[in-house]
Amino acid sequence: MAENKFFKDIDDSLERYQQELCEFLRIPSVSAYSENSDAMRCSAEWLLGRLLDIGFHGDLIETNGWPIMLARHEHRKEAPTLLIYGHYDVQPEVPLEEWKTPPFEPSIRNGAIFARGANDDKGQLYTYVKALESYQRVRGELPLNIIFLAEGEEEIGSKNLLRFLKENGDKLRSDIFFVSDSSMLSKDIPAVTCGFRGIVSFEIALQTMKKDLHSGLFGGIALNATEVITTLLAKMKNEDGHITIPGFYDDVRPLSSRECEAMAHLPYDEAAVAKSLGMAMLHGEKGCSAIEKKSARPTLNINGIWGGFTGEGPKTVIPARAFAKISSRLVPNQSPEKVFRCFENFIRENIPTGVETDIRFLFGATPVVTEIDDPNVRMAAEAIEEAFGKAPAFIRSGGTIHIISEIKDSLKIPSMLILGWGRPENGSHSPNECFYVKDFRNAIRSLCLLFDKIASNGQDK
Amino acid sequence: MAENKFFKDIDDSLERYQQELCEFLRIPSVSAYSENSDAMRCSAEWLLGRLLDIGFHGDLIETNGWPIMLARHEHRKEAPTLLIYGHYDVQPEVPLEEWKTPPFEPSIRNGAIFARGANDDKGQLYTYVKALESYQRVRGELPLNIIFLAEGEEEIGSKNLLRFLKENGDKLRSDIFFVSDSSMLSKDIPAVTCGFRGIVSFEIALQTMKKDLHSGLFGGIALNATEVITTLLAKMKNEDGHITIPGFYDDVRPLSSRECEAMAHLPYDEAAVAKSLGMAMLHGEKGCSAIEKKSARPTLNINGIWGGFTGEGPKTVIPARAFAKISSRLVPNQSPEKVFRCFENFIRENIPTGVETDIRFLFGATPVVTEIDDPNVRMAAEAIEEAFGKAPAFIRSGGTIHIISEIKDSLKIPSMLILGWGRPENGSHSPNECFYVKDFRNAIRSLCLLFDKIASNGQDK
Repeated sequence: MAENKFFKDIDDSLERYQQELCEFLRIPSVSAYSENSDAMRCSAEWLLGRLLDIGFHGDLIETNGWPIMLARHEHRKEAPTLLIYGHYDVQPEVPLEEWKTPPFEPSIRNGAIFARGANDDKGQLYTYVKALESYQRVRGELPLNIIFLAEGEEEIGSKNLLRFLKENGDKLRSDIFFVSDSSMLSKDIPAVTCGFRGIVSFEIALQTMKKDLHSGLFGGIALNATEVITTLLAKMKNEDGHITIPGFYDDVRPLSSRECEAMAHLPYDEAAVAKSLGMAMLHGEKGCSAIEKKSARPTLNINGIWGGFTGEGPKTVIPARAFAKISSRLVPNQSPEKVFRCFENFIRENIPTGVETDIRFLFGATPVVTEIDDPNVRMAAEAIEEAFGKAPAFIRSGGTIHIISEIKDSLKIPSMLILGWGRPENGSHSPNECFYVKDFRNAIRSLCLLFDKIASNGQDK
Repeated sequence: MAENKFFKDIDDSLERYQQELCEFLRIPSVSAYSENSDAMRCSAEWLLGRLLDIGFHGDLIETNGWPIMLARHEHRKEAPTLLIYGHYDVQPEVPLEEWKTPPFEPSIRNGAIFARGANDDKGQLYTYVKALESYQRVRGELPLNIIFLAEGEEEIGSKNLLRFLKENGDKLRSDIFFVSDSSMLSKDIPAVTCGFRGIVSFEIALQTMKKDLHSGLFGGIALNATEVITTLLAKMKNEDGHITIPGFYDDVRPLSSRECEAMAHLPYDEAAVAKSLGMAMLHGEKGCSAIEKKSARPTLNINGIWGGFTGEGPKTVIPARAFAKISSRLVPNQSPEKVFRCFENFIRENIPTGVETDIRFLFGATPVVTEIDDPNVRMAAEAIEEAFGKAPAFIRSGGTIHIISEIKDSLKIPSMLILGWGRPENGSHSPNECFYVKDFRNAIRSLCLLFDKIASNGQDK
């Protein structure tokens, strides 16, 4: 059986695959550190090297920031082209003292590789490289065209990849868009991610008076900016957790019956999750399930608020200025620009006369959704079930990967597969980040099987 | 006429009185600077010296902080005893670059003495010393007993005077309590201050979850601490500016008809004040006049609020912790402790289950009120009218001088006179603080006349 050949090759190579991943993880490619040029370049070159080893050609593309790695394997004009996206940069390793073993000295214990980037995204990304290797060894050749794109700025906003995309979109034309940067539902249940929420993020600055005033001399007649902002923010949601901004929900696409059904079957222990987060219960919109609230419903969160005196002890001041950072996660078909305008209108209508109001758009990303009926989604689910021995859940991620919606929208790629092999508890962005070797293996298996299915399907067309 | 003799003596001595005040102002007695021992001691000794010059005896009293100056002139067992309170310490001079002339090099221009402390409180306090001198020169002797108390920590909380008061209250027993630390209504209208508001100040710290969470992964089910605190704070006042904390207004003593009348006659240009503060209009409680709101009504102000990410740019975090500093100015007969308990109850009842809440009392001060019908108040008003050529307004100060309520309450002094000679625009605590020579003179006149009236009244008893 074909499966067995893949599985056998992967098992035979697994020790070496792991060691290679550890090599990749040893490169401290923290994109946030501006003096990190050597490590960033080294990381991109290392990844490119592993693709050149297996028949790709490619280069590093220079940008105003960290280089983009773009490698191609295109020998079959008639076959579908897969665009594989991931990133070779990692989050800062701080706080260093909380790591049990050093973040850039990978350590394997309890079946997992511990290192910064093990899960996000080097480990997950590397499953594609090794699947492409095993596939070629077993099948002799690659029946698909592959464009392998890895950036070094995902953790800092993808600014230069966005620019590259605008100018060189035609270099990335493809039929299926693979995204390596998501996660499984739980340690036992793999997943196909059918969408990411979008986001709109903005900042409000209010000034109610020329300057801060003495609360004794002016208390009772002054206009306290922190009071204005708290009153304003409190008005944005009602007691049922519904957002009260006029127009906010207008473009929310209701879940289809298949989506509802898929969500209803997901196991989710609300009490356990609440306990693990240190809450008496899960909160949010009345009338929605927890899964729906955290992945398929739009949200509104204050990310930061400040104004007045925040030092030690008392200061009896009436603050003249107050600030808040706010963001909303968006769902299909909400638009960041349109939702931002709803907020703007609401704020201007609910601020007392004479208050100077500065509302600044910080960033936005369109929600993305993979149609659950897409044949590629079905094939991915079958491949994962064969590889993991367990059917994947169809989930939506509550998060946002800005660059994904940009790539999908600007390149108009018809099909998207968001396949994640990390467990939620793997600690992306946290100390002691890890990636399970078993998941690494099953992911490579899944991809080999899926490439086979896509190739047959493509040839059947 | 008696008046003329006082006025003539004061006019004859005015040049010297001014020069002496400038000497006092040259001593940089900033109490906030912990390395300022020489200047603090020098300032207290200088003031004591001027009282010894005119027949007082006294000493500096050592404390854990800056010395207390206590001087006495008690030759008339049967006569009333006046306790005069003020302070010889001053606020820090920063920002230095905003001063037109150096803060500790007094400069006389446009009829005013410019220096740190000119208004708050050295200039105002020194009117008493010079009134006592002129009085004795004109009348030959002092028909009253005087206890002259000046502290060096008014600007930093009066902690050591409070301690002294607890242990040595009997040394300050007196019949009339004079407070030198208030102001006129405006540059043309002198004032008798009939009360200070009290205050209660506290801090709220909320924790809704173990730690900050990712707004993508948990947005929709997490409990945002900044949302909890803004919702809570917004609930504390209704749209009419009334405070909604149950029990908050319970002990507010309604204004008497005489108090209402006195307030109704005060000139107050709301539009001009609003404009000068940079507001479209004055705000606050519906149904109250501006004068009432800023001096005779209790208030609620957020002095500071903070939580979540407050740096540059976006961060899509759900904050687990949020903080606010809050204070209420209180009016007779509200108690800081009781009002604090009202807030505590309200907060605990309005916080979602499971939120860790820490409510910390920072400080409190009881409101003080001078009965407008007190014969001493009447005599003070008459003296001021004769000296200034203009009847004083009866005002209440919206501010709080903690030590005053402590002195009045603990010593049970039957009568209190809060007489201020500074103009509101004299810039206490600000750069270019000043005190008008004309007001300095009229204040000394007022006090001489008032001592005479009190002495005759006392002998009439």
